[in-house]
Amino acid sequence: MNDMTQTNFERALKIVGSRPARPDGVDKVTGRALFGADKSLPNMLVGRVLRSPYAHAKILSIDTSKAEKLKGVKAIITSVDFEDFPSEFVPNGEMVVNMKDITRNVMAREKVLYVGHTVAAIAATDEDIAEQALALIDVKYEVLPHVLEVEDAEKSDAPLLHDDMMTIGVEPAPTSASNVAKRVEFGFGDVEKGFSEADLVVEREFTTQQVHQGYIEPHACLASVSEDGQAELWCTTQGPFVVRNFCSKLLGFNAAQIRVTASEIGGGFGGKTVVYLEPLALALSRKSCRPVKMEMNRAEVFTASGPTSGAKIWVKIGVKNNGQITAGDCILKYQAGAFQGAPVGPGAMCAFAPYDLTNVRAVGYDIVVNRPKVAAYRAPGGPISEYGVESVIDEIALKIGMDPIDLRLKNAAKEGTIAPYGPKLGPIGMIETLEAAKDHPHYSAPLGPNQARGVASGFWFNIGGETSSSITINEDGTVGLTLGTPDIGGSRASMAMMASEELGVPMELIKPIIGDTNSLGFNFLTGGSRATFSTGTTVVESTREAIGELKKRAALLWEVSLDQVEWVDGHARLISGDEPKTMSLAQIAKQAGKTGGPIMANCSMNVTGAGPSLGTHIVDVEVDKETGRVSIIRYTAIQDAGKAIHPAYVEGQLQGGAVQGIGWALNEEYIYNDKGELENTGFLDYRIPVCSDVPMIDTVIVEVPNPNHPYGVRGVGETPIIPPLAAISNAVSRATNKRFDELPLSPPKVLAKLMHG
Amino acid sequence: MNDMTQTNFERALKIVGSRPARPDGVDKVTGRALFGADKSLPNMLVGRVLRSPYAHAKILSIDTSKAEKLKGVKAIITSVDFEDFPSEFVPNGEMVVNMKDITRNVMAREKVLYVGHTVAAIAATDEDIAEQALALIDVKYEVLPHVLEVEDAEKSDAPLLHDDMMTIGVEPAPTSASNVAKRVEFGFGDVEKGFSEADLVVEREFTTQQVHQGYIEPHACLASVSEDGQAELWCTTQGPFVVRNFCSKLLGFNAAQIRVTASEIGGGFGGKTVVYLEPLALALSRKSCRPVKMEMNRAEVFTASGPTSGAKIWVKIGVKNNGQITAGDCILKYQAGAFQGAPVGPGAMCAFAPYDLTNVRAVGYDIVVNRPKVAAYRAPGGPISEYGVESVIDEIALKIGMDPIDLRLKNAAKEGTIAPYGPKLGPIGMIETLEAAKDHPHYSAPLGPNQARGVASGFWFNIGGETSSSITINEDGTVGLTLGTPDIGGSRASMAMMASEELGVPMELIKPIIGDTNSLGFNFLTGGSRATFSTGTTVVESTREAIGELKKRAALLWEVSLDQVEWVDGHARLISGDEPKTMSLAQIAKQAGKTGGPIMANCSMNVTGAGPSLGTHIVDVEVDKETGRVSIIRYTAIQDAGKAIHPAYVEGQLQGGAVQGIGWALNEEYIYNDKGELENTGFLDYRIPVCSDVPMIDTVIVEVPNPNHPYGVRGVGETPIIPPLAAISNAVSRATNKRFDELPLSPPKVLAKLMHG
Repeated sequence: MNDMTQTNFERALKIVGSRPARPDGVDKVTGRALFGADKSLPNMLVGRVLRSPYAHAKILSIDTSKAEKLKGVKAIITSVDFEDFPSEFVPNGEMVVNMKDITRNVMAREKVLYVGHTVAAIAATDEDIAEQALALIDVKYEVLPHVLEVEDAEKSDAPLLHDDMMTIGVEPAPTSASNVAKRVEFGFGDVEKGFSEADLVVEREFTTQQVHQGYIEPHACLASVSEDGQAELWCTTQGPFVVRNFCSKLLGFNAAQIRVTASEIGGGFGGKTVVYLEPLALALSRKSCRPVKMEMNRAEVFTASGPTSGAKIWVKIGVKNNGQITAGDCILKYQAGAFQGAPVGPGAMCAFAPYDLTNVRAVGYDIVVNRPKVAAYRAPGGPISEYGVESVIDEIALKIGMDPIDLRLKNAAKEGTIAPYGPKLGPIGMIETLEAAKDHPHYSAPLGPNQARGVASGFWFNIGGETSSSITINEDGTVGLTLGTPDIGGSRASMAMMASEELGVPMELIKPIIGDTNSLGFNFLTGGSRATFSTGTTVVESTREAIGELKKRAALLWEVSLDQVEWVDGHARLISGDEPKTMSLAQIAKQAGKTGGPIMANCSMNVTGAGPSLGTHIVDVEVDKETGRVSIIRYTAIQDAGKAIHPAYVEGQLQGGAVQGIGWALNEEYIYNDKGELENTGFLDYRIPVCSDVPMIDTVIVEVPNPNHPYGVRGVGETPIIPPLAAISNAVSRATNKRFDELPLSPPKVLAKLMHG
Repeated sequence: MNDMTQTNFERALKIVGSRPARPDGVDKVTGRALFGADKSLPNMLVGRVLRSPYAHAKILSIDTSKAEKLKGVKAIITSVDFEDFPSEFVPNGEMVVNMKDITRNVMAREKVLYVGHTVAAIAATDEDIAEQALALIDVKYEVLPHVLEVEDAEKSDAPLLHDDMMTIGVEPAPTSASNVAKRVEFGFGDVEKGFSEADLVVEREFTTQQVHQGYIEPHACLASVSEDGQAELWCTTQGPFVVRNFCSKLLGFNAAQIRVTASEIGGGFGGKTVVYLEPLALALSRKSCRPVKMEMNRAEVFTASGPTSGAKIWVKIGVKNNGQITAGDCILKYQAGAFQGAPVGPGAMCAFAPYDLTNVRAVGYDIVVNRPKVAAYRAPGGPISEYGVESVIDEIALKIGMDPIDLRLKNAAKEGTIAPYGPKLGPIGMIETLEAAKDHPHYSAPLGPNQARGVASGFWFNIGGETSSSITINEDGTVGLTLGTPDIGGSRASMAMMASEELGVPMELIKPIIGDTNSLGFNFLTGGSRATFSTGTTVVESTREAIGELKKRAALLWEVSLDQVEWVDGHARLISGDEPKTMSLAQIAKQAGKTGGPIMANCSMNVTGAGPSLGTHIVDVEVDKETGRVSIIRYTAIQDAGKAIHPAYVEGQLQGGAVQGIGWALNEEYIYNDKGELENTGFLDYRIPVCSDVPMIDTVIVEVPNPNHPYGVRGVGETPIIPPLAAISNAVSRATNKRFDELPLSPPKVLAKLMHG
């Protein structure tokens, strides 16, 4: 099914690669677009959540009787309203899930494991009553000691979050419980031998803090469950089918019972791939038999949704004096939050993946701590591990006196390289992005006092997965596309463009919508930079099927055999014949009733062959040596997109990823007090970059086509968040002549290093 | 595409033919179901309509300047906001449309043609402001004489509604304008010769009054048009694709720009096949750039939506003394309302269609009058013409002393009969319903004083048409169906049942929804009794395609060739092999990701081969000779359903049709005053039957399979409204020994006949 015999790489393209207006643009600018909190239903209740005040405690009892008596309270739920599951790990795209954990994260069962952990939820006729009712729920806790950092959590005497959790992936199998959920290892060759062959070995430890995706739209949903168990759910999500899957399991529904419609999404970045409010709203609606709307406030988003891991990492790299890397080794210890599932696997996969190495090893540990369970965050795990590796690469370049881009070019992964996580790579753009960086005027621009330039590369593997979409040819020759992956980064535009290119009709005549879960076969979520690649593949396939049908109809109308008809520029054309004869798509569509009926096609497939995307970023920083403040002076993000369907969106992804990386590098961090309470639960204290913090991010799109997509697309959304962490740290190190090994590079930390080394 | 090689007529069925709970039942009972007026959007305006106070007038000027200045008024529209069109007739299922008329009916242009005709519409921030604004619109009219009845309108000196309208279908072509829009004629043989061979000729004139469908839910919609011309429309309709088609033309949109979602529908009966508020709401939203909600009140529904024709008809039938009909002739003059389009074509087609005749003619005239433009009403045109024919048949039976069922049996149409409108009929159930009537205990039950029994038959041809639907197999083995024809009479249930029967999975695991216009290929509307037949055909086809895919996946998993796998009872089964081996649909679905991806199928076709449905009704009436009141004592409706997928719904259709026919026969009528104003614009004065007016309607379902549907389905929704008019009139005639020739048989009319003959 994934056979792309008709290659488009060489063909002259009319729409793909251009920059048309986006289909969702006006609605977003005018405020008409409907986000998670923007829908209402008659008779709707408001849902609110009671959250744990403790970082770690046993739940002794929950008494809801007083709250139930409050007039206006229509339903109260606790863990008894959710299904329980035995422990079982199931892959879920880039991450793994264990329903035993999900049900406990959605609603605390035996224990609360972080401040903000959901303990109960209520639905009431208005917000005031809901808030009053929350205060009337009496929960008795036995407070337990808590642990927040991986280095504390892995100690043998650390408070155990899960009494029965044995480390997976170690030999011999452990006999006692631990906070270390899992060990993973990737690599090949003999690293010790490699190090012994090196002229220089650099070894360093790094620390990164927990950071949040910082999507502007909080989690929100509206659920309506009928007395016969038929449910409608409107929510802001990256994956309505995944939401259906989780919610049906958690609540004992089957998939057909829950129809999920994804709202417009105000940012997700991986954080809207899991469920928080959705199963609560459904459970409350089921109990109250009324629609229930729920919204998180910003503090709830920070404390009770899924940020990414803070981590401790150790990196060791050996090189010859000519820059040839002889071995790379790293150990990654990632915070999982309250339940296992840190993105340490992908972190370990990607750590050394930009390079073509013969001796390489990456070991990762997934360690539970009393923080919210982490969720995916843009290239989950990648920025952390590659920050460490790319920092050491830079240090090596300095030490051996080699240009950091030349050092990377010398070791760059290329077509045929065996990636540290196993596969032989197809065509990839590491060398091309490095060369584009080297050729870019930015790289040779003069620097001012207290300024320096940093460089780093990033690798992300990208994914495919199960995908379905459909196309309809309307009676006037316009076209409808129904897609199953929410549009986060412009997929409505890119899908309409690919269909437009194939059909030969203007993009403005093609309307792409995101369908509900009843209308399409399963779609894995918008994540893993898979939408343009995977959904695009199905759109091209179904469009080609529709073209086949259009040709058939033209053949019928002309009374010729199908092989006498070709499709050119939005028209059927008679191949042989005395005079040229064509029929437009609109003319064929108008007569579809007479030639067999409406024209519609769909494509459902498990899309494989995602192409890894590589990026190289250049950043100039200026360090204020009096205050420790780091300013970004100039920034250039260069990335291999395979093929940029809509270059402006690709540039937006590069810019957005870079800015999130800048925030991670410079300011963002979860700050906990001694009680395990998060102290910075708002955007005033949790500092994401605002416009005035960053210069215009310059971008360069490199195009090394992915042979497994009809237009050569690689996912582009995740890679650009990877290089900024090391690029900025390298620049700050170079500007100060100190090696920095801890993020964020916030003024106090930079100043301390400057003053105390 | 319509090849039904696998017949189900003989096969033992598990689900089809049973009576499971309806998928939409609970939501309708609890009030959760969302009808046309039940949806809201942020920032929504309310739309209101200014209507003509005159039955016929020129519009000299419309001054909206004062209304525009009122604070809170956001948009005002008049005819300048709509496209104009040249006159062109286009078939639209059972009816024809002319966009030149539609645009003028939606918004009066040069003239107003009936009281209630839309002249302007406004959108304002609340209802009070909207009402105030309507009063501030200054319309100057030149009032013209009006005409309400066909016998007045066809006179040469009648006021002309359309100065340029020439009668179509007459030879020689007329040279001057007329209110007679069209003449149609069906038939064959030589009726004059037939009458000359008759022993008895009966000739009679009949009058029927204009009646309304009386759907409980008024027209309502919610439109939202973005600044870039992308529109969403929620409305109560029988055909969201047809609404899209009309609205896109009227407003200069293309089809892809308007996404129409059909609400639950609170009755339509043909009256929700056209547009009234929808284009107004879209135009107001486009102008105001805000969502606009519009609802009709009941008076607006009566005066400004589309009831069916009142008519004058003349019928002449000749018979031999043995009951053999030698010729049938009729002339039908139907009110079109303000614009041509009376259902006189289908009326003429069906008039004599229950009979196998050699000399037959039916002539119809479509005549415009100053009443609202008629719309389809359940078997449009059929009840009127067949009322005349079936009344004369009864009179003949009395005159020749023959049982009225025997007379009909003697002349009954059957397989091979050439219908008066041309085609040779396939298997049909006229004889079977007559025999079932004769055998029914009702037919031989004793009658009391002032009571009598009437019988009548009815024929409706039914239609197919363009239809699309899709099926998805969810990852847990449950199933989603997306249908494009709104569920009026239980189609969600019947579609799920047919899919259940094919797949072999319980109906409860199959979720049928009505998709929006972007999600499916074109669907003609729910009308012409086509949904169970046409949509059912596509559902069976796409389900069989999905089964083919399921078998393929099983073959892959078993590593056998596809021909080694059969589908039995919801399982793939290995045909040969040492031991029986099966795999359930759910097991296959769970592994779909590994075997190629999600499973989805769709079917789009122009469905042909609708089977005509025949019904025979028996009614006992009692006439109160003092007051003229007619009471229905007992009622039995017998009809050929081909195959009743869900018999309870078919019975409901038979009962509902009978009750609407009873209302038409006994009480319902549009009553106009001298000014052309409708005097009975509410359900207190326009008297539809309530529960206490009718006995329990007994039903008998006859099943003569339609060979063109996989389960033998015929449409059943329309036929049952045809027989009641004549059956009741015949019963009243027999009870009183007077021939009644005018409807409704309301107490004053019956009393007048009893007293004055």
